[in-house]
Amino acid sequence: MSGHLVASYDAELKDLKQRILTMGGLVEKMIAEAITALVERDIELAEQIIAMDHEVNGHEVAIDEKCLELLALRQPTGRDLRFITLALKIVTDLERMGDKCANMAKRARQLSQEPPLKPYIDIPRMAHWVEVMVKEALDAFVRGDDVLAVKVCKDDQLVDDLNEQVQRELYTYMVEDPSTISRAMRITYIAKSLERIADHATNIAEMVIFMVKGKDIRHTIA
Amino acid sequence: MSGHLVASYDAELKDLKQRILTMGGLVEKMIAEAITALVERDIELAEQIIAMDHEVNGHEVAIDEKCLELLALRQPTGRDLRFITLALKIVTDLERMGDKCANMAKRARQLSQEPPLKPYIDIPRMAHWVEVMVKEALDAFVRGDDVLAVKVCKDDQLVDDLNEQVQRELYTYMVEDPSTISRAMRITYIAKSLERIADHATNIAEMVIFMVKGKDIRHTIA
Repeated sequence: MSGHLVASYDAELKDLKQRILTMGGLVEKMIAEAITALVERDIELAEQIIAMDHEVNGHEVAIDEKCLELLALRQPTGRDLRFITLALKIVTDLERMGDKCANMAKRARQLSQEPPLKPYIDIPRMAHWVEVMVKEALDAFVRGDDVLAVKVCKDDQLVDDLNEQVQRELYTYMVEDPSTISRAMRITYIAKSLERIADHATNIAEMVIFMVKGKDIRHTIA
Repeated sequence: MSGHLVASYDAELKDLKQRILTMGGLVEKMIAEAITALVERDIELAEQIIAMDHEVNGHEVAIDEKCLELLALRQPTGRDLRFITLALKIVTDLERMGDKCANMAKRARQLSQEPPLKPYIDIPRMAHWVEVMVKEALDAFVRGDDVLAVKVCKDDQLVDDLNEQVQRELYTYMVEDPSTISRAMRITYIAKSLERIADHATNIAEMVIFMVKGKDIRHTIA
């Protein structure tokens, strides 16, 4: 194998990492802006986020193709093989996160057309943590950093706790005044979507630990 | 390459297909039994389903390893490469379906300890369709049958429609009698979980169409 080909292979792996970070950056932006659209009742911003989902989907298709190309042409083994197969799984998680952001934006759009129910306090905090988790899960992936990945798995509990809190509060609203039910349900779904995005980030982090340690801790971390 | 090795490679691919069908069969069983546990208020059955999730996770880990082994040792290209990388993605979908079944069983267990809210009519119908979708998505995968995969994508609409109907009906209960809210919310989550399992089946079917046709129809089917 020529030195030129080796260099080009490293460059291709670097390019793959960069593409995943770019896709992840887009998803992080969508999370933040979906919550801004909710809090500021900004219908136009909600529309923009819904449109961004197509861009996320485009990234998924391109990264999948890149991975298949690397597997076919480079026939990697060992660590590189684990990295590329993990990239294939991670883009699926990122794509589903994008779907959830678009769904949050749709709910935010509906809520902007109805009277406000309450100021949002816990949901923006949840969104902040979720964004950090997504960012750190991807950083852990590209750097092969299992310590950071373990942190992501632990942070999931914070998001779960905030979600429980939001659900309980909204339940109280619904019981006290049934006219709030439809709005409270929409907000419930937004919190639930954030929690599910955090689950995707946790899935990525667990897979990264597997990639680094070579043993499977999925389904063993509580 | 010796004839023996080629035969063994075919046997390994066949074994991979069989493992995925076995894992899928377990998930189909969990869907059906989670709904039986709900309808018959069977707490013991709900517990069994929650325990089955570990079995699903075990299948995921084993199939992932098998795929990595095939990629490393056989260095497949073309159609086999697409098949194996798709298997890697599909087991993730199946594992998440298993999680959702365990969550449904947890809700069924809670609901069994509370007074019944209403007879279940649409949810068992939804569950039936979802089971069919999971089965057909996996059959489409192992047989490379894009026609069957297109059917799965279309059936998703039936499940979405039933879910909408269930959500509307439960909303009416909640508005008319706030004492039903907590139970209605749990039932809402069960319907939503079924809808998400159907989405996973649809994701699998879209990826199968891509595998067979070699072009990406994900994100183009409405």
